[in-house]
Amino acid sequence: MTLKVYSTLTNEKEEFKSIIPNHVGMYVCGPTVYGLPHMGHAKSYVCFDVVRRYFEYLGYKVKYVQNITDVGHLVGDADEGEDKIQKKSRLENLDPMEVAYYYETKYFEAMDKLNVLRPSISVRATGHIIEIIDTIKTLIEKGAAYVTDEGNVYFDITKFKDYGKLSGRKIGEGLSGERIEIAKDKRRNEDFSLWKKADETHLMKWASPWSVGYPGWHIECSVMSKKYLGDTFDIHGGGIDNMFPHHESEIAQSEVANGVKFVNYFMHNNLVTVGGKKMGKSLGNSSALEEVFKKVAPIEVRYYLLLNQYRRPTEFNIEAMLKNGEAYKEMCEVVTKGKEKFGVSDEITSDKVKEHKTMFLDAMDNDFNTALAISYLLKASKELSSELEKGEQDAKLISDYVNFFDKVANPILGLPFELENKTASDSSDDTSLTNQVIEELLTVRSELKKKGEYSLSDEIRNKLNSFGVEVKDSKDGFSFKIVNK
Amino acid sequence: MTLKVYSTLTNEKEEFKSIIPNHVGMYVCGPTVYGLPHMGHAKSYVCFDVVRRYFEYLGYKVKYVQNITDVGHLVGDADEGEDKIQKKSRLENLDPMEVAYYYETKYFEAMDKLNVLRPSISVRATGHIIEIIDTIKTLIEKGAAYVTDEGNVYFDITKFKDYGKLSGRKIGEGLSGERIEIAKDKRRNEDFSLWKKADETHLMKWASPWSVGYPGWHIECSVMSKKYLGDTFDIHGGGIDNMFPHHESEIAQSEVANGVKFVNYFMHNNLVTVGGKKMGKSLGNSSALEEVFKKVAPIEVRYYLLLNQYRRPTEFNIEAMLKNGEAYKEMCEVVTKGKEKFGVSDEITSDKVKEHKTMFLDAMDNDFNTALAISYLLKASKELSSELEKGEQDAKLISDYVNFFDKVANPILGLPFELENKTASDSSDDTSLTNQVIEELLTVRSELKKKGEYSLSDEIRNKLNSFGVEVKDSKDGFSFKIVNK
Repeated sequence: MTLKVYSTLTNEKEEFKSIIPNHVGMYVCGPTVYGLPHMGHAKSYVCFDVVRRYFEYLGYKVKYVQNITDVGHLVGDADEGEDKIQKKSRLENLDPMEVAYYYETKYFEAMDKLNVLRPSISVRATGHIIEIIDTIKTLIEKGAAYVTDEGNVYFDITKFKDYGKLSGRKIGEGLSGERIEIAKDKRRNEDFSLWKKADETHLMKWASPWSVGYPGWHIECSVMSKKYLGDTFDIHGGGIDNMFPHHESEIAQSEVANGVKFVNYFMHNNLVTVGGKKMGKSLGNSSALEEVFKKVAPIEVRYYLLLNQYRRPTEFNIEAMLKNGEAYKEMCEVVTKGKEKFGVSDEITSDKVKEHKTMFLDAMDNDFNTALAISYLLKASKELSSELEKGEQDAKLISDYVNFFDKVANPILGLPFELENKTASDSSDDTSLTNQVIEELLTVRSELKKKGEYSLSDEIRNKLNSFGVEVKDSKDGFSFKIVNK
Repeated sequence: MTLKVYSTLTNEKEEFKSIIPNHVGMYVCGPTVYGLPHMGHAKSYVCFDVVRRYFEYLGYKVKYVQNITDVGHLVGDADEGEDKIQKKSRLENLDPMEVAYYYETKYFEAMDKLNVLRPSISVRATGHIIEIIDTIKTLIEKGAAYVTDEGNVYFDITKFKDYGKLSGRKIGEGLSGERIEIAKDKRRNEDFSLWKKADETHLMKWASPWSVGYPGWHIECSVMSKKYLGDTFDIHGGGIDNMFPHHESEIAQSEVANGVKFVNYFMHNNLVTVGGKKMGKSLGNSSALEEVFKKVAPIEVRYYLLLNQYRRPTEFNIEAMLKNGEAYKEMCEVVTKGKEKFGVSDEITSDKVKEHKTMFLDAMDNDFNTALAISYLLKASKELSSELEKGEQDAKLISDYVNFFDKVANPILGLPFELENKTASDSSDDTSLTNQVIEELLTVRSELKKKGEYSLSDEIRNKLNSFGVEVKDSKDGFSFKIVNK
């Protein structure tokens, strides 16, 4: 099978063909850094991390550009309200760049924990004001943007004949559904801000031919994607909530300015829901990742997010995360056991495992269907588990199963199937010490049982339970599992 | 005592007075992101992290700005050679911004491990080209910079009467000691680049009134410190190897452009040496922090760096780091023991501990003399240890010692005196499980000894030893220590 990608531009699964053979250029809208990263961020960036990882697994060299919006994103999408970072800066009495840098740091901290690989380039809007001004000049020269007496510049949406080709909206439909308070100097609702004049109190501002001001929200992505990926590039990703007006506006600006197609494949991940509805502000910080991570291990959050293909919504539900986390940990346990006993094979030759691998890759080829792909892992894990319980074990088969998890599923999904349920953090030394000590404690317990010292052996078990270590006895010994506390 | 800071501008310890009461603005030269962070970076940023922490301990609100040099730092200091990042990008066949972002990430990863707090604002040179061009314009208008036929702009050092006030160099002495290959269009050796025309193959370039090019190395720091800290600010820090020409040039540019004093206190940390000599390139990557961290725990590297006051050099010596790391770990052990038994007092009232605290703070007040400050910790740790061995223990005294380490030394030095020898990472849960399990194993061992089961009890001890856990028996039980493997 060949890789098929669902492009929101055509609403179809299309065969993927890169512009430059074996290279993929992708741009994903990054966070606006005025608040803590939450489940919505996790969903989007885990999904696109898997997209990137899968391309790399297939042998592509990926150039993954992601932006940091540190200026120009207003509180409302229809060019009204205050700049989000400026507002936070005012409320917290900090330099806007202190606000932006703080939340940028928080964002990457959370992404690191989710085992999301860093983009190849992380770019800040404030770092590209020159290029933004240049592009706006081009748009004005081409007659697609107008300067108002107020010193603002707007994109004239009537000058882009394909307006709505992404979202299906038509001019005149307005920003239906959004509360609008339209800037007075705009010619029509759909026109959007390229440059805004800053008032006296605004801290982030730059000189421009039109006013001392700052860029609108949409223009940064057109400018930075062009700078690092070229006029036309392979994949543009983002949350479905960014499709309109953000991505629609990007297309309009870029295609008018550059005169060529902007993006070959537009990919949109679905949202995180609560009770089936879009996760709202009323949730407060409860979906902030630092809160979620107190209850669920980050790698289990990642696993949970991948249980839905990226175009499906994910329900925010701690219990469901924990429950599925158990399934993930069981896989980790089985794989670790197999690995410790028989290692990882160099190549999968057993038919059974080969088939799982084929099905897994087919699922990934089918628009990154991680949900389906994971189902083969669960199947494989069950089979591996029963193989491990057999009296006479097939070493090659077991090491093939381990290969499937270790060399196929892990690099693609970013899920290390390791007992300690961690991302590749540096605390593995500690964990292995913990495991060693627990193992020794249980070995002593076995000795004590043999000697009939049951009160002491029971004490050991009870203590371990109280520490969150579950002990299972079996005919050939014992096993244990460290349970989330 | 009041805080005294040694300023390289006067070569004297001066009483510290901030421009705005209770606020400190500090700027420290950050890394040029074209290679892995090494011991030299660790020395500089750990030292200035302690400066920042001490100000915060004293109740100042610190605005700490640090730059990322991602363009303009040439291979040679005398404006010759290629841009360092451009060169790396050519060699590695990557976008220069991929190179810069990769090493920026590596830098912060290492700093996080060293328990170095993030600056309030981390700024990139490429993000401030507009402001750089504006400042160069001002310098040209003031007659202190000249444009050459080649499209380059240089600062005319004869236009700054105080040239040499930092480094003591005089015009005409040349760049003695440095290999020079002077740009042909410069009027004199000491003139330095503000703007360089880019050749066709150069990737990072911007339009300017003089040429499509990129900024010289020094100008970025003048521009970014002004933008975030104002024309005159409190402290400028950096490695002593940056004093000339970098900081000397910064002063010249800033004072001419702004017409006021640039910085009140210039602080320079000394270098890392090998065999007493400046650590050279010939070391290769052996001082790269990721290599060092394989041998020495990051927090012990930090401790080792603080054993010399920042104006003294630090000898790069793994054995010495490990040896001193042992002393640090012993302190951690003693403090943890005291804390577990009697907790942390709210306020130090015991005369003995009060005196240590006074002496410790005096040392810090004396130009951040961490070497002397740590000597009081070692003393206090010894006293605490013998107090803990007494039959009748003074709970208040012990909790006062713990207070000294926990509430004074830790926030100031960034050294958590915890048994696990970690920075405040999120693996503490695991460590506490490890400790619980070891404790249980040793309790079982005590039981076994009582029962005369010596072979089993010995086995436990041997096993623990083999895992890297040292067991000490005493009359009232046992204690253990997790030794670095």
